[in-house]
Amino acid sequence: MPQDPAPPLLRDTSPARPAAPAAAPGGPSGAGAFDWLDAAGAARRDAGLVRTLRPRPADSPLLDLAGNDYLGLARHPEVTRGAADAAHHWGAGATGSRLVTGSTELHARLEAELAEFCGFEAALVLSSGYAANLAAVTALTAPGALIVSDAGNHASLIDGCRLSRARTEVAPHADPEAVRAALTGHDGRALVVTDAVFSVDGDAAPLPALAEVCRTRGAGLLIDDAHGLGVLGEGGRGAPWAAGLAGDGDVVTTVTLSKSLGSQGGVVLGPARVVEHLVNTARSFIFDTGLAPAAAGGALAALRLLRREPRRATRAVAVAQGLYERLTAAGLTAVRPDAAVISVRAPSPEAALRWAADCRTAGLAVGCFRPPSVPDGISRLRLTARADLTDDQLDAAVRTIVATAPGD
Amino acid sequence: MPQDPAPPLLRDTSPARPAAPAAAPGGPSGAGAFDWLDAAGAARRDAGLVRTLRPRPADSPLLDLAGNDYLGLARHPEVTRGAADAAHHWGAGATGSRLVTGSTELHARLEAELAEFCGFEAALVLSSGYAANLAAVTALTAPGALIVSDAGNHASLIDGCRLSRARTEVAPHADPEAVRAALTGHDGRALVVTDAVFSVDGDAAPLPALAEVCRTRGAGLLIDDAHGLGVLGEGGRGAPWAAGLAGDGDVVTTVTLSKSLGSQGGVVLGPARVVEHLVNTARSFIFDTGLAPAAAGGALAALRLLRREPRRATRAVAVAQGLYERLTAAGLTAVRPDAAVISVRAPSPEAALRWAADCRTAGLAVGCFRPPSVPDGISRLRLTARADLTDDQLDAAVRTIVATAPGD
Ligand SMILES: Cc1ncc(COP(=O)(O)O)c(C=O)c1O
Ligand SMILES: Cc1ncc(COP(=O)(O)O)c(C=O)c1O
Repeated sequence: MPQDPAPPLLRDTSPARPAAPAAAPGGPSGAGAFDWLDAAGAARRDAGLVRTLRPRPADSPLLDLAGNDYLGLARHPEVTRGAADAAHHWGAGATGSRLVTGSTELHARLEAELAEFCGFEAALVLSSGYAANLAAVTALTAPGALIVSDAGNHASLIDGCRLSRARTEVAPHADPEAVRAALTGHDGRALVVTDAVFSVDGDAAPLPALAEVCRTRGAGLLIDDAHGLGVLGEGGRGAPWAAGLAGDGDVVTTVTLSKSLGSQGGVVLGPARVVEHLVNTARSFIFDTGLAPAAAGGALAALRLLRREPRRATRAVAVAQGLYERLTAAGLTAVRPDAAVISVRAPSPEAALRWAADCRTAGLAVGCFRPPSVPDGISRLRLTARADLTDDQLDAAVRTIVATAPGD
Repeated sequence: MPQDPAPPLLRDTSPARPAAPAAAPGGPSGAGAFDWLDAAGAARRDAGLVRTLRPRPADSPLLDLAGNDYLGLARHPEVTRGAADAAHHWGAGATGSRLVTGSTELHARLEAELAEFCGFEAALVLSSGYAANLAAVTALTAPGALIVSDAGNHASLIDGCRLSRARTEVAPHADPEAVRAALTGHDGRALVVTDAVFSVDGDAAPLPALAEVCRTRGAGLLIDDAHGLGVLGEGGRGAPWAAGLAGDGDVVTTVTLSKSLGSQGGVVLGPARVVEHLVNTARSFIFDTGLAPAAAGGALAALRLLRREPRRATRAVAVAQGLYERLTAAGLTAVRPDAAVISVRAPSPEAALRWAADCRTAGLAVGCFRPPSVPDGISRLRLTARADLTDDQLDAAVRTIVATAPGD
């Protein structure tokens, strides 16, 4: 997710009155404890890999093919009203851990409706998809357990593996036979962990084959459906539903409320006993304030809207496939999208950066992924389809991307 | 944060149509991958340590001395309006990582005003205090570095230490000389990590002495001010301000937006080079959707209100001290509060649980901490002071707590 260089957005607001005794940086030699950061920063600059924040206005003139608002719901009046009404009715914050004062009836309603929609017995809402992945991975494993994790998995799953202290075997990307081999010979608890739709390339995991391997080996299957919910499966019920795995007793799914549902938060879906176990043991659930009511209310409104308008899901996929067809027809190399993410190959990190910048100059926001954010070292533009893009907008986007494409 | 037993809040909403092939739990033996959870659940039940969710209505009849809304701002009309207006204006979600589409001018404004208020050069907003602690600890250390972590630190700091893969020495609680000893002999990077106000007992860390130790050893100091912001320091500027450490080049502070500011989110405050480093390297920042606009808007409104009404901060501390005086005068054993958290000792886990339940029956919500959530094995009630509690409410709370107290 690196962006082209621009002055970092940092405050130079010195306090009205200096609170600290003009703080000569400490250290026996008078050196500061964080002096090493300057060298790290210089190395980033030399490598052309500085990432900066670029705050956007509420009404950006850019056409957005970079965000993950796949269904175009983040600004939908029903969804923003759901968020605003929840803030008025329930308060701006949850005021405590879900286990103390932070569970409202709104959280419970969202959990019930999401579980029912996605076809799972129970659901648990956390403050982010990142937190949901930490919770699921750590609570379902332990030191001594084996985790088999796809090489393309999202950072939050990887951090969950690290926190769990379980033994983690990284399996080659989307390779059920490699997963089978990794499980062979292990006879304690095992958990296979995979993105349903990989966040960088937008390709789908072979869920039925993975589930079959898990079944024969007695392993649990944890599916991160961050990019599948709202897009795949009947009416957007997600990749596990599409694979016939929703409600399976050996399958746990995580989703985020921040992409298709246009809000914020994360959810673990699975058997009731899994949710009960998380409530009792998952540190990123227990030691974190409950999701803000506005985020829960926004997501609930988005979910209800999606149920009423299931064609948003199919439209997002159709838009992605249309973009793919037209970009490859124009000679670009891209990964055929299984959901709403299209990855277009760039010849080099520098070229990717320039390409994204040229798109931006032409009024189009696209994602730009370069090393070290991409495990395979291949730089690419990352485009996201949105159900609410018009044909004119798609025409303009394709024109811009093709016109600014680097030569070989 | 365990609560008294009640049926776990789990959905029994089977999908309208079973999506999965009635899923006999797999495994070579026909056993399910998650069967082990039943034994774990039974062990919890036998030990009387089941935690359950108890969703509350919007207008709970209980007097709340359990939440962390220290200034009484979560339901304040200015704050809920700030949240609601932000949802309408900016959308229900941020739509992407802060590095892609998820930074709005609202996030930038909140960062600027918080940095200025707390007296630090720069600030970075994340989706939770938990995520902020993971970001700060992992980005400021590395394998090979040394972390010295107070034994009473919050779980999110501990998880940050685990994720960092640095060597972590746990120092006895609030003991600067032990920290000095732990740092002695190490000559690479070192980071001392402490809560400013410990979340269970509400006691304050010896920040000036810790800063002095860090200075003489060239170590950085990371202060988690989750329970100090809005309560300690001039007008609620926080514990580092109160200790003369705000803006110190060797000090980094994390805060949450979910307690005094009544919203959701986390913030890292420190030198600009630290914030720049986090933007470029902190995984819980980079690989997480930006904080929802409503949460940022609610926190910003709360911050502005606090600046206008600085006496809310002193009132919260005075309420806590008043509660402490009256409870100890009635013969209870409590920790003298340094901020707005009062910890009252219970003779046993069972007694604590019954005490909290009796308070609840009498209309008062209090926190109940038992093993394994308490590192020292001592069960206690955890009370939180709120700036907006009336004298009548305080009278009622004290009466209830004293009347329901277990005998020795
Ligand atoms: C595959 C995947 N999992 C998890 C997450 C984390 O979700 P959240 O942004 O809600 O923390 C993301 C993106 O942010 C993702 O792409
Ligand atoms: C000391 C401390 N640090 C960090 C946190 C985490 O903050 P958040 O709830 O915003 O994730 C909490 C409480 O939740 C806390 O008590």
